[in-house]
Amino acid sequence: MDEDGFGLSTAQVAIVGLGLMGASLAMDLRGHCAGIVGVSRSPETLDYAIEHRIVDRITDFDSALDCDLLVLAAPVRTIIKQLQKICDLPSAIRSKRPTVVVDLGSTKTKIVHAMQALPSRFDPIGGHPMCGKEIAGIRYAEPGLYRDKTFVLTLLERTSPRALALVREMIGVIGGVPLVLSPERQDALVATTSHLPYVIASALMRTALSKGDDQLWTAAASGFRDTSRLAASDLTIMIDILLTNREAILDALKDYRAELDALTTLVESGGEEALRAALSPAQQQRARLFK
Amino acid sequence: MDEDGFGLSTAQVAIVGLGLMGASLAMDLRGHCAGIVGVSRSPETLDYAIEHRIVDRITDFDSALDCDLLVLAAPVRTIIKQLQKICDLPSAIRSKRPTVVVDLGSTKTKIVHAMQALPSRFDPIGGHPMCGKEIAGIRYAEPGLYRDKTFVLTLLERTSPRALALVREMIGVIGGVPLVLSPERQDALVATTSHLPYVIASALMRTALSKGDDQLWTAAASGFRDTSRLAASDLTIMIDILLTNREAILDALKDYRAELDALTTLVESGGEEALRAALSPAQQQRARLFK
Repeated sequence: MDEDGFGLSTAQVAIVGLGLMGASLAMDLRGHCAGIVGVSRSPETLDYAIEHRIVDRITDFDSALDCDLLVLAAPVRTIIKQLQKICDLPSAIRSKRPTVVVDLGSTKTKIVHAMQALPSRFDPIGGHPMCGKEIAGIRYAEPGLYRDKTFVLTLLERTSPRALALVREMIGVIGGVPLVLSPERQDALVATTSHLPYVIASALMRTALSKGDDQLWTAAASGFRDTSRLAASDLTIMIDILLTNREAILDALKDYRAELDALTTLVESGGEEALRAALSPAQQQRARLFK
Repeated sequence: MDEDGFGLSTAQVAIVGLGLMGASLAMDLRGHCAGIVGVSRSPETLDYAIEHRIVDRITDFDSALDCDLLVLAAPVRTIIKQLQKICDLPSAIRSKRPTVVVDLGSTKTKIVHAMQALPSRFDPIGGHPMCGKEIAGIRYAEPGLYRDKTFVLTLLERTSPRALALVREMIGVIGGVPLVLSPERQDALVATTSHLPYVIASALMRTALSKGDDQLWTAAASGFRDTSRLAASDLTIMIDILLTNREAILDALKDYRAELDALTTLVESGGEEALRAALSPAQQQRARLFK
């Protein structure tokens, strides 16, 4: 809380999108803010959210804008549409209440660009919590999803210290680790660490499917399970990511293909020492990275 | 046990190679056979095996051949060398004792080929338990490693029903699920389900390393962790696999590269419906496969 008494504990929070991310956030924020309202287009999700006390009450998008902290927790292209909609809503512009806006979208350049056009009473900051599951939906929401996970923040020129402090307080409450990056840098990093692995996993699944051999699934052990896991990710979320971070993902794919071709040539030419020299740095770094 | 009183409970078992696989097998066989001797080239491994009562006693390779069930649990090319060595050992040929030989190597065509040349008192059968970890060594051995995991058996023309029955009894004791396949078919299947994922994971690690950006590891969350996991695999084991299953792996890599290129083109051209159509079968199959 700052010297004006503004802080998370007195904030009315609105979460738009009550899927895995939004609902898990609501669970962790309970008791740490003045109230949580939820918005979803799905009646089943709203019923579930009320029944399981994930939010205090439900409302519609327009009414949700009348809050202190607005969290946009939908797929990326939906977030962009919602930001554009706010610009067109007379009620959103008329209100004098200051509202901090943060989103949970996986790509940031296009979202931050849309945030720039928000009416002046909105105080936007981009967010990307680096956690999730390959399954989507409120039923998979759980407390602690954000704990010890990197939470990227992308600041706009117009982002106020007040907005940054409030969102940092929110990240503190849910146990995340804030990391400030420019939108372009964040998008380039996650293209390699997250979006490329998704394409890789999907290509692996498609390769396995193309064999048309059911015995193959019997032979699929833990190595296949882990390498292919991301292919099960929610398609709406992933297609939004692919379409809003296309250039960075294509760059990562180009580099990856070069590495794949180099390893293929080494498997083909069969030099043991050359194989060891190529695989060893990857082996050592991966062994260091996750203990 | 068969009608002659031959079975696992009366069998002297020798395990050559006390790494993760061999030592975990020894742990699970304890109490189910007449005795377990262990062979390793590493004095530290032998000390550890005795100290932790993983084997009853240690011996050398030549003496280990005087057993009822010989388990070769080294990397693939070492197994092939050991099979060739048996052919050259006068003592191995002189003894009249029948010895069932099974191995735990990940590729089977070249091992089964080497098994064909064994002296007649040896009764060989190829084995490939589809389990493991990305870490190697006796310190990571654990009971239950084989439980509920597919254990591929590759039969030779000379494999006797007696050998098959004994090895099936062993697999039953450790809780594995036996699956008889030809060596060529097993090698083609695991090229796609295991060896291709290893090359994929290594290429991903090399791509990430090539960025030379330490911030990238901060951005590496659970998706990157799982997709890259196999890159941490033991190099000696993996290089033996790459070199002894080269043709099948190159076939799998060729198919994978075509799938990767197709997905890259779709990311590039940006059609949402085309992306969904390409990714959806992979998404559905992966979601079905591992619940």
